[in-house]
Amino acid sequence: MSFVTGLKCVFCGARYPARTVMTCPKCGVTGILDVEYDYAAVKRRLTRRALAARPDPGQWRWRELLPIGERARLPALAVGGSPLRPAAALARRLGLGTLLLKDDGRNPSASLKDRASAVGAVKAVEAHRRVIACASTGNAASSLAGMAAAMGLKAIIFVPERAPEPKLAQLLIFGATVLRVRGGYDQAWELCQRACERWGWYNRNCAVNPYLVEGKKTVSLEIGEQLGWEVPDWVAVSVGDGCTIAGTWKGFRELRLLGLTRRTPKLLGVQAEGAAPVTAAFRSGEPLRPVEPRTMADSIAVGVPRNWKKAVDAVRESGGTMINVSDEEIREAMRATGALAGVFAEPAAAAGVAGLARAAREGVVPRRAVTLAVITGNGLKDTRSALEAAPRPIEVPPDLDAVAAVVER
Amino acid sequence: MSFVTGLKCVFCGARYPARTVMTCPKCGVTGILDVEYDYAAVKRRLTRRALAARPDPGQWRWRELLPIGERARLPALAVGGSPLRPAAALARRLGLGTLLLKDDGRNPSASLKDRASAVGAVKAVEAHRRVIACASTGNAASSLAGMAAAMGLKAIIFVPERAPEPKLAQLLIFGATVLRVRGGYDQAWELCQRACERWGWYNRNCAVNPYLVEGKKTVSLEIGEQLGWEVPDWVAVSVGDGCTIAGTWKGFRELRLLGLTRRTPKLLGVQAEGAAPVTAAFRSGEPLRPVEPRTMADSIAVGVPRNWKKAVDAVRESGGTMINVSDEEIREAMRATGALAGVFAEPAAAAGVAGLARAAREGVVPRRAVTLAVITGNGLKDTRSALEAAPRPIEVPPDLDAVAAVVER
Repeated sequence: MSFVTGLKCVFCGARYPARTVMTCPKCGVTGILDVEYDYAAVKRRLTRRALAARPDPGQWRWRELLPIGERARLPALAVGGSPLRPAAALARRLGLGTLLLKDDGRNPSASLKDRASAVGAVKAVEAHRRVIACASTGNAASSLAGMAAAMGLKAIIFVPERAPEPKLAQLLIFGATVLRVRGGYDQAWELCQRACERWGWYNRNCAVNPYLVEGKKTVSLEIGEQLGWEVPDWVAVSVGDGCTIAGTWKGFRELRLLGLTRRTPKLLGVQAEGAAPVTAAFRSGEPLRPVEPRTMADSIAVGVPRNWKKAVDAVRESGGTMINVSDEEIREAMRATGALAGVFAEPAAAAGVAGLARAAREGVVPRRAVTLAVITGNGLKDTRSALEAAPRPIEVPPDLDAVAAVVER
Repeated sequence: MSFVTGLKCVFCGARYPARTVMTCPKCGVTGILDVEYDYAAVKRRLTRRALAARPDPGQWRWRELLPIGERARLPALAVGGSPLRPAAALARRLGLGTLLLKDDGRNPSASLKDRASAVGAVKAVEAHRRVIACASTGNAASSLAGMAAAMGLKAIIFVPERAPEPKLAQLLIFGATVLRVRGGYDQAWELCQRACERWGWYNRNCAVNPYLVEGKKTVSLEIGEQLGWEVPDWVAVSVGDGCTIAGTWKGFRELRLLGLTRRTPKLLGVQAEGAAPVTAAFRSGEPLRPVEPRTMADSIAVGVPRNWKKAVDAVRESGGTMINVSDEEIREAMRATGALAGVFAEPAAAAGVAGLARAAREGVVPRRAVTLAVITGNGLKDTRSALEAAPRPIEVPPDLDAVAAVVER
């Protein structure tokens, strides 16, 4: 039995029974819905003790807080349960008191998006769909392709024309049908929407499908449990479309609601300077104004974020703030996170670390705070950016004296 | 307290106390040593019940079987504890009865080598070394660089001239000093050896350092525990230098020795047709004859494997066999493993799957056997090979009819 009680529009507040709609019929496709649960019932079942008795560290241990039936067929891939570890040397370098890294690059397709795609694939099977689709150049697509493969679903992915080939390698190997649309991301997105309507494919686009963000919130549920039912003072999450930080907040909110933790962290929403419309909306209090995105951090290079309101509300409710970082700060964070913690973060993931560093410098995050950065994706997904950020190899002849000249200098 | 009793030369059988030598002084650098333990003492400590009470699923749960002190400082990265999952659809495609995948691409730097590098880094700290070095183009190097970063050690990596840049991205981000040696792998290797001697750096080269393979064996220890103290009938491991399959065998042997499992699996050692000197030595019973390696599977493209004898002995002792697969079979296995299991395997990892498929076709592995392939590395480490193996994207204009023409055909 699922504990879902219904869906609520984040714009107009209208409520709908589950499974009837994907977006609010009154508000149209921008009327994003939020899944609601019978928290009183969940609270009776999802106790610390009950959780301690569940051996699987992955995201399904939170099934009462997920919009899936108890007998739902689950993918064989191990999703979630990612490592949480202290990074003392990195904290010192960044001027932070305590820094924890939640490494979601360790998911099956190497990004946090697997948490969402897993829920999407389970829902598609539940709805007896054979095809699941999305428009994405990056992590959402490859994670969807992987989950679909694991569940025996067909994945159809719409990518913009200029999607770099290495980004496609993963989804092509997962057997997805990849349609490269002559045009940009927005055209790919629109085409995907219309195709899903026409052929009845299950739509994995996060900003439209209310269930996916429920998968994302498990990252916070895990953080609470991994810290012995404590939460950090500040949690940094990079912001593109806004879904991930919204999901992160929902998880922390639920932990407190269920009495599993006593408090919630402040969220630090981090955008790239060249793609910061959500920060602008957060600061101005006005509706979002689209921008032309310009940043190396492609996973958060979103000019028209569709979930900006959920993101802004989440940061505000948490008592946190939004901050922007430059591409050079992102590159520096990639180098520091790699060299001082042994974690290879993709640019969008390093942006969270860079945001904490800047917030510390600006006094937004106090020196004594316990901070956490969510590493949303693995740097292996974008080795070109890594090579731009990294130092160069040193050329030497096969000669020990040449090595001496390098190592003894 | 460590349970290590000493080191034994795999060639001449001479025994040495631990910590005194790295290779057999009588046999020279080819005199590879094997770490021996007080198994009676280990058996008293390392019981099924004791293991069940250890919450950390990673490789340190086997510390009695590792050559590290009980108070050794461990890296903060979560090593091992990788998922083991059934792959029914893939098994059907390959003509196998039951197929399990042990996905070691989920390790911190995305390969099984992390198990070895973690032990290496711990030993280096134990020996009060500040620098750890190796010669490698690939997984050993990046995993060493990551572990060194996590432990605060300096890593110096010798790579051959033609090492592809994307392969270097990971180690450069981890802050390693990368010396690109004008010459091939063998020259890089020799230079590393001499540099370690001259400056007293800790040597991570697997074929020389007897401790690293001890980390690798934890993959088998985990398999035994994950299967409820059963083992598969056949375990496929791709073979390059020979260290990994030797380590795999040692783990299975120890499981049985300690009474944790009743039997051991047969090993299927898989080489690429274009780099198969170990298979040749296995079949001929003669010493290894070097070859010029030619295969897309760069992690096993080894012409002069330094651990061939351990590998041949391991396969023979297990009652298994060696098999070769073509690059086209490897590509097909990459596609099938991706599309039917949602696992992105690097070519060397897919070689194991391809080997099982061929062994099934040739009747070497019976239809009813429970088989397991060790996925030794993540395909993200070599997206160029993946793109060569994968189908192409389909170009479409931003038009629903064009999509219809594709999906309805």
